[in-house]
Amino acid sequence: MSTPSLDFMQRALVLAEKGRGSTSPNPMVGAVVVRNGRVIGEGFHLAPGADHAEIAALRKAGKAASGATLYVTLEPCCHTGRTGPCTDAVIAYGIKTVFAAVKDPNPAVNGRGIRILRKAGITVSTGLMREQATLLNDKYFGYHRHRRPFVILKTAQTLDGRIATASGDSRWITSAASRRFAHRLRAEVDAVAVGMGTVRSDNPALTVRHVKGRNPYRIVLSRSLKFPPACRLLTDNKDYRTIIAGGEDAIERFSRTKKGRNLILWGVRLNRQGMPQIRDFLDKAADFGLQSILLEGGGTLATAFLKAGLVDKYVLITAPILCGQGVAAVGDLNIKKLGDAIRFEHGSFETCGIDNIFIGYPQRS
Amino acid sequence: MSTPSLDFMQRALVLAEKGRGSTSPNPMVGAVVVRNGRVIGEGFHLAPGADHAEIAALRKAGKAASGATLYVTLEPCCHTGRTGPCTDAVIAYGIKTVFAAVKDPNPAVNGRGIRILRKAGITVSTGLMREQATLLNDKYFGYHRHRRPFVILKTAQTLDGRIATASGDSRWITSAASRRFAHRLRAEVDAVAVGMGTVRSDNPALTVRHVKGRNPYRIVLSRSLKFPPACRLLTDNKDYRTIIAGGEDAIERFSRTKKGRNLILWGVRLNRQGMPQIRDFLDKAADFGLQSILLEGGGTLATAFLKAGLVDKYVLITAPILCGQGVAAVGDLNIKKLGDAIRFEHGSFETCGIDNIFIGYPQRS
Repeated sequence: MSTPSLDFMQRALVLAEKGRGSTSPNPMVGAVVVRNGRVIGEGFHLAPGADHAEIAALRKAGKAASGATLYVTLEPCCHTGRTGPCTDAVIAYGIKTVFAAVKDPNPAVNGRGIRILRKAGITVSTGLMREQATLLNDKYFGYHRHRRPFVILKTAQTLDGRIATASGDSRWITSAASRRFAHRLRAEVDAVAVGMGTVRSDNPALTVRHVKGRNPYRIVLSRSLKFPPACRLLTDNKDYRTIIAGGEDAIERFSRTKKGRNLILWGVRLNRQGMPQIRDFLDKAADFGLQSILLEGGGTLATAFLKAGLVDKYVLITAPILCGQGVAAVGDLNIKKLGDAIRFEHGSFETCGIDNIFIGYPQRS
Repeated sequence: MSTPSLDFMQRALVLAEKGRGSTSPNPMVGAVVVRNGRVIGEGFHLAPGADHAEIAALRKAGKAASGATLYVTLEPCCHTGRTGPCTDAVIAYGIKTVFAAVKDPNPAVNGRGIRILRKAGITVSTGLMREQATLLNDKYFGYHRHRRPFVILKTAQTLDGRIATASGDSRWITSAASRRFAHRLRAEVDAVAVGMGTVRSDNPALTVRHVKGRNPYRIVLSRSLKFPPACRLLTDNKDYRTIIAGGEDAIERFSRTKKGRNLILWGVRLNRQGMPQIRDFLDKAADFGLQSILLEGGGTLATAFLKAGLVDKYVLITAPILCGQGVAAVGDLNIKKLGDAIRFEHGSFETCGIDNIFIGYPQRS
């Protein structure tokens, strides 16, 4: 077996990134065909229906792929979706060695691609830059591992952890650079969700405006469904992408009102406190086919998801301002000791304009 | 006049840094003597009584200093303290051109040094890297400009702006790397101050332990002076550096108790709410000769200083953990609109271990 090269896998990861925001429900994938230490073909997956990364790279390499090595950021697929199985192509082109960063968690693949290649006499090795390859497709991995949408909580706060002043002023806490960053996040998820407090105070459109990208589904998760008079999420719905999730009875009543027209309605079970059950909500979202949901506010929604242990990724944008008493970013989590505080894996702080962005994955306790 | 070189001033700033933590009440200063584009002498100020930077650099340069250029991070002094005036030496060595980054704000100098050099026929230019040179000695500049101690507020908090859980657990929020950083801060100030809440919950020693450095004065600022039974700040006072500041009547009574022995006691005027007046406290501290005070907690003290507009520098250490409801880092600042939030000059976020540190200078409104 040839010695694996981090450089080629790194290149494949860079290629994979080119699909960011357009591949869902497929993962981002990059592939590099190498012969005698030289790249002879490269490819990445751009969108559902387009070539898979391996196919694109093999096609570029052509006949020279025979006997060559393939670096790919994800196990090659072995099922026929809109395109044929990649394993067939890898075998047909005569690839001798495959370095796949990580096994595909999709139950339709999940190691079968590797077995098929090995059966055909190809040397297959996994694990090279597995961590980076997994983080690259965190939403895809989360979705297939937990069989529910990957939940990203995004909060924009002051240095002292406030999302609004005591009187409710929240526009704008963060800088224009951070708002662009937030819109890129929107463009990469299947849906954006807010609670009724945010609907009332911000009347958000939840569309992608500051960057290029597709609009996600827009979800309001609320017990009461008491919408304010003029509400963009109800009126600006030409694409029929607004989803209203609430208590089953409330949804039933809402469906019979004028406001409820042309909306996607989900009845969600309530918990003992009379609030929508987060897990039931996510089950509904999974049934609908959502692979990822971005929670954009406010504190009540954030707290409910955190308390339920159902936040998979936390994105916290902090602006360099202090406002003192105000609306807290996170409410009561029933944590008494610092030892029980929520900690993060792969946590990192990055600068964004004058703001700071923390990204981390809450540890499962 | 020769063309100024950023490189030489940058070198002088690096040299000045070598005095960090040991020069107070003097500023850190670095100096470089340059002839024909080559450094022929370097120096910095280490501690009160030791050579000033210019003297050290000139001595190294020797006779070659005649006709040379001097880069110095601060206007040369013109008064005799423990050492002779630097202006005399600069003239005697025959320096032809002086680049001083910034004017010395000390009323005993304040431009007089420059005038003396010019009178002697030396070309003097100021302003080269003024900003860096001013930030280098922020405490010294603050003290002389405002005629009161430079106040640094340091807070260690969770991502959601909490300095302790609801039940008061605060040890430890931040990592070992951040605690070393915090001890370096202590070693660089004349005094550290806490409120009684912190005395009660943490029983702190307020000494420099995790790094090398001298211990600052330790101040408790409290209205009530109700100390808990075993209190390190009262018992561990072999160096007689504990200062208790409280209401005038309370201090008067406290001075007659056994606990009040061997302590430095400051009676401070109370405001209408019955709390110590921050400005009067700082006047007392200035009279005592303190050039800088580090506020180390808790939320009440921080809020009082912020509300009074008497925080000169804010150092915020954020640990990547979430604790939900708990003790807020900052209390009510009476800010209703985000437009009135406290903003910062020279604000920057830096990584420290797994934590993040924000440093900024609150803007004067």
